[in-house]
Amino acid sequence: MSFESAVLDAIETKKRGGTLPESVIRQVVEGYAGGSVHDYQMSALLMAIFIQGMEYEETLALTGAMAESGARYSFPGCVDKHSTGGVGDKISLTSLPIVAACGAPVAKLSGRGLGTTGGTIDKLESIPGFSSALPETRMRKQVEEIGLAIAEAGDLAPADKAIYALRDATGTVDSLSLIGSSIVSKKVATGADHLLYDVKSGSGAFVKTPEEARALAGLLVRLSRSLGIEASALITSMDEPLGKAVGNALEVRESVRLLSGDPSSSDLSEMSRSVAARLLALKGVPTPEDAVERAISTGAAYDKFTSFVAAQGGDPDALYSLPISKQVHEVLSPRAGRVVCFGALNVGRAALLLGAGRTRKGDEIDPGAGVEVLVKAGDEVEESQPVARIYGERNVKRAEELALEALEISDTAAGRAPVILESL
Amino acid sequence: MSFESAVLDAIETKKRGGTLPESVIRQVVEGYAGGSVHDYQMSALLMAIFIQGMEYEETLALTGAMAESGARYSFPGCVDKHSTGGVGDKISLTSLPIVAACGAPVAKLSGRGLGTTGGTIDKLESIPGFSSALPETRMRKQVEEIGLAIAEAGDLAPADKAIYALRDATGTVDSLSLIGSSIVSKKVATGADHLLYDVKSGSGAFVKTPEEARALAGLLVRLSRSLGIEASALITSMDEPLGKAVGNALEVRESVRLLSGDPSSSDLSEMSRSVAARLLALKGVPTPEDAVERAISTGAAYDKFTSFVAAQGGDPDALYSLPISKQVHEVLSPRAGRVVCFGALNVGRAALLLGAGRTRKGDEIDPGAGVEVLVKAGDEVEESQPVARIYGERNVKRAEELALEALEISDTAAGRAPVILESL
Repeated sequence: MSFESAVLDAIETKKRGGTLPESVIRQVVEGYAGGSVHDYQMSALLMAIFIQGMEYEETLALTGAMAESGARYSFPGCVDKHSTGGVGDKISLTSLPIVAACGAPVAKLSGRGLGTTGGTIDKLESIPGFSSALPETRMRKQVEEIGLAIAEAGDLAPADKAIYALRDATGTVDSLSLIGSSIVSKKVATGADHLLYDVKSGSGAFVKTPEEARALAGLLVRLSRSLGIEASALITSMDEPLGKAVGNALEVRESVRLLSGDPSSSDLSEMSRSVAARLLALKGVPTPEDAVERAISTGAAYDKFTSFVAAQGGDPDALYSLPISKQVHEVLSPRAGRVVCFGALNVGRAALLLGAGRTRKGDEIDPGAGVEVLVKAGDEVEESQPVARIYGERNVKRAEELALEALEISDTAAGRAPVILESL
Repeated sequence: MSFESAVLDAIETKKRGGTLPESVIRQVVEGYAGGSVHDYQMSALLMAIFIQGMEYEETLALTGAMAESGARYSFPGCVDKHSTGGVGDKISLTSLPIVAACGAPVAKLSGRGLGTTGGTIDKLESIPGFSSALPETRMRKQVEEIGLAIAEAGDLAPADKAIYALRDATGTVDSLSLIGSSIVSKKVATGADHLLYDVKSGSGAFVKTPEEARALAGLLVRLSRSLGIEASALITSMDEPLGKAVGNALEVRESVRLLSGDPSSSDLSEMSRSVAARLLALKGVPTPEDAVERAISTGAAYDKFTSFVAAQGGDPDALYSLPISKQVHEVLSPRAGRVVCFGALNVGRAALLLGAGRTRKGDEIDPGAGVEVLVKAGDEVEESQPVARIYGERNVKRAEELALEALEISDTAAGRAPVILESL
């Protein structure tokens, strides 16, 4: 069957709600990646998939075909984690050195941030000298010697990349099957075979409700296991930023504090420990919570982080003189009361405007820019009390407005929601 | 609203089964015709429309927007007919001279054939000297003076043309709303305001069942009336070729015989008369059946046809020496029995292979090629009796095979189905 007839066959089947055979899915993906299937045919098929849905076997076939469309790595025995994206999410920076310190090797291929979602690579590169351009052989050597390497992902799952760009332009992003296959195809190509998914749910995440998060987490774990990966998932809250810092160097500073045993916020501390323990559990480490505590209290996790930074060209001494913007502006509370929520989405938008993130791929970021929230849900505030600090020089006025829009204060007592909602 | 946001808005609405406002539909059509809306966005929207369907008001808005996307003509008081396409369909050649002879002016803008569906323009151009390239002013003058002009349609409804090409490549052809809006948009642009639709149903038509034909006919009439056209429709059978000749010069010869009062087959005769009478009825002519009979029996219809041919450069004398291929091959019946069906689709394919039609736009046709069926459903045949004649030099062997495949003979008596199934 030619690529052309495969896609027409697929469209015909799916538009009537039928099930696509694996061979057809593979031909369509290969044909699209190779340019034989046109954009306009692929987008028609994606819309049919969007409306009619896919069976699990179809989603699995799509995931496999996309995973095999480009470079594939293999890091047997290594662990990795994946977050669906949030504001102030520095869990990779904190949990991965912990698990490496506990003897579980970490090989992570990661991406850059886009929109209000930060990227681990951007954060690490705010450390003077740090390089995420790590050739495969050097990466393998570093994993062997130090047990922790984080490199920028190259041309992983290019079919997924092309399909994602098309979905973005044709209103077919918010499909569970398509989201799941997109995420897992990239993770399969990165090659670590022990994987924890952190599915964010809330106003600052692309998944808004715990129900949707549960469905997505279930699919990610099931697809990963079908493709030979030991996987589990956490569903975590993303109504407020995670921890206090949002912005690249700011988040590294907060992570270093946590690894030094001096965490700035309990939600970050709890979540870093939980993720690390879950990763260790995937590797079969006994009493993983104890191992995590030990790695932090003995300084082993912190030492692992500095060795890792040094191995990738970073200056460990610079961790205490990170290039954080000297331009700091305090945001004051407009009234007294109790914080109901310091909304992640608007804090993320403020950081984005300040230059901490990119609106489009290729935008120049300001590693020193960002927002620090000083209060969280449940905290009591006085009128004119500082509630946030704004770092950076771009759009400061608008960033302050957004920070104030993000802050919801009421007269009645508000509780603090748990950060980990569920685990699969 | 920009074209880009209009199409994204339309996709978002339609993928969830919502209703598109007229303003959005107009923006999308205008944007697509102008190149601001991408093929891949339009195809995603078309697939959403295909699956979710459109309300009548949406279909009407789409029809209007496509009709207005290019040149628009206006021939007030004129009649025209439209056939959804069949094999051996020469009803325009026969019925339009009849109605013109009865005093109803005819202004027809027509197209060329594609696939097994012939085109009136191709048929007329098999007459030596005949030209269908008629500038608008000359066309108006001819309609005034002779009451009958048939010209090749220029850039009518270009948005429909572009959308149709995209539907053809993305599996979104067979949608009632899209088919209806496509047909009516072109007819609205041609400007005759009294219109009869001949919706073919059967194995040789793109509509296979009378139920689908009824739905399409109803939609065509309703859309046309909403857009200011007096319209009605016939649902007619297309299981066998209409009349006996299939092929350009062959069909002109058969039409001339009918206009001369010497029809070669009763189905063609019945249908030509019915269509003519229905067109006259649309114009309010009293006792239209009598007028039709008179036009044929007095020779007025034939005279109208020769005047029309002459006005467009054709040689009326050549109507009796048309360039019909001298290469004639007789197809013999493989057995004795009663004809159940001489299937239109395979006869059409045979004619196409012989060069009577085009597989692709721009293919060179052989005006003298085609097939004449000598028997029809209900006829008794002997073994080795000639059942068809094949004209032309290309693919004769394969054409004969197809003709034999088309011919179904049984031992038991088979009836002849009526040619006109229903009228709306």
